[in-house]
Amino acid sequence: MARTTGSDGGRTEAAIREAAISLIARYGYEAVSMRQLAAEVGVQAAALYRYFPTKEDLLFTLMREHMEGLLAAWDAARLATADPRARLAAFVRNHIRFHVERRHSTHVSNMELRSLSRDNLTQILRLRTSYEKELRQILRDGAEAGVFVIDDVGLTAIAIIQMITGVIVWFRPDERLSVEEVAETYLSMTMRLTGAEMPREVQHVHAHA
Amino acid sequence: MARTTGSDGGRTEAAIREAAISLIARYGYEAVSMRQLAAEVGVQAAALYRYFPTKEDLLFTLMREHMEGLLAAWDAARLATADPRARLAAFVRNHIRFHVERRHSTHVSNMELRSLSRDNLTQILRLRTSYEKELRQILRDGAEAGVFVIDDVGLTAIAIIQMITGVIVWFRPDERLSVEEVAETYLSMTMRLTGAEMPREVQHVHAHA
Repeated sequence: MARTTGSDGGRTEAAIREAAISLIARYGYEAVSMRQLAAEVGVQAAALYRYFPTKEDLLFTLMREHMEGLLAAWDAARLATADPRARLAAFVRNHIRFHVERRHSTHVSNMELRSLSRDNLTQILRLRTSYEKELRQILRDGAEAGVFVIDDVGLTAIAIIQMITGVIVWFRPDERLSVEEVAETYLSMTMRLTGAEMPREVQHVHAHA
Repeated sequence: MARTTGSDGGRTEAAIREAAISLIARYGYEAVSMRQLAAEVGVQAAALYRYFPTKEDLLFTLMREHMEGLLAAWDAARLATADPRARLAAFVRNHIRFHVERRHSTHVSNMELRSLSRDNLTQILRLRTSYEKELRQILRDGAEAGVFVIDDVGLTAIAIIQMITGVIVWFRPDERLSVEEVAETYLSMTMRLTGAEMPREVQHVHAHA
């Protein structure tokens, strides 16, 4: 079967990313060698270096794409409404859905900040900050509108993100709960945490989504 | 200066633990060798094996002691009162204080479950479960007494633990906030999350603690 070089290359690159995410999540970045990764993918180490000149390029690419993917997913999920409660609900649902589908990648992104050089770390932290800023804005708008009770917008944003990201540590979609059920439970905890009553419209929108 | 073998041994063992926690937190368990650890402590690798016959023995000891320390700290901090809100407050304050003082150890304990053999993993998970059970009992008592609003006791316990453990990711005690201030902010978020009003007595007890 004839394949174009382009699509072969695309497949190889995708296979490298996938194998890298799973090996790094399992053993940690420092313990995984390019040689081991090449063997896992079934290519020569030289082929690997064609796509990723250094091991850190590979890690940085994985972490950057994770954050860009998250920002893109949020861009698609965000609502036009001004209601901070509906916006918070959209944020929590999108965040949980995105991360549950990318457990290993989330794990790598959270664990391996320690392994980035200063410049790459700065770039990743900038992406994280711009994502957190979205949540901070929702919380600030809600506090100003009097629908949220918030002592410290920054700490509350971090607390919510850590609470809802934590889902990936224990949750497997094939167990007693679906992703949607877990997201709804975490959403109602988030709503209480921010001192908000879950508005009926928000529940309604979701039930028909 | 004469030293007894016993105290020398104690010092060496403590130095091994400390170096191991910091190396594993930085590079990950798989990437750290016993040889590297011995060099860091300034002893021969053979000396290391006298205290810890295998690398996994060392990891398991670190993780077991972390959890036993946490359970002991909670045992000392728990209140005799029946008030679920005061008990929850004591739990959150103890948890944050314990983990902020042991950032690297917490990091290792959360990250390296993946590196334990099945039997050791089972033992660590049993300790974690008995700790989480303490929180679940407080939540259940509060829900039954009508002071907490909780949809799912198990999920709420996990959510609270992940939220308050997350403090160690960003918090450094020498920055704009003290451990106590951070603990109070997280406590008021926890109280709202569980649908509880922070009782005046609990605030009062703390102000004079």
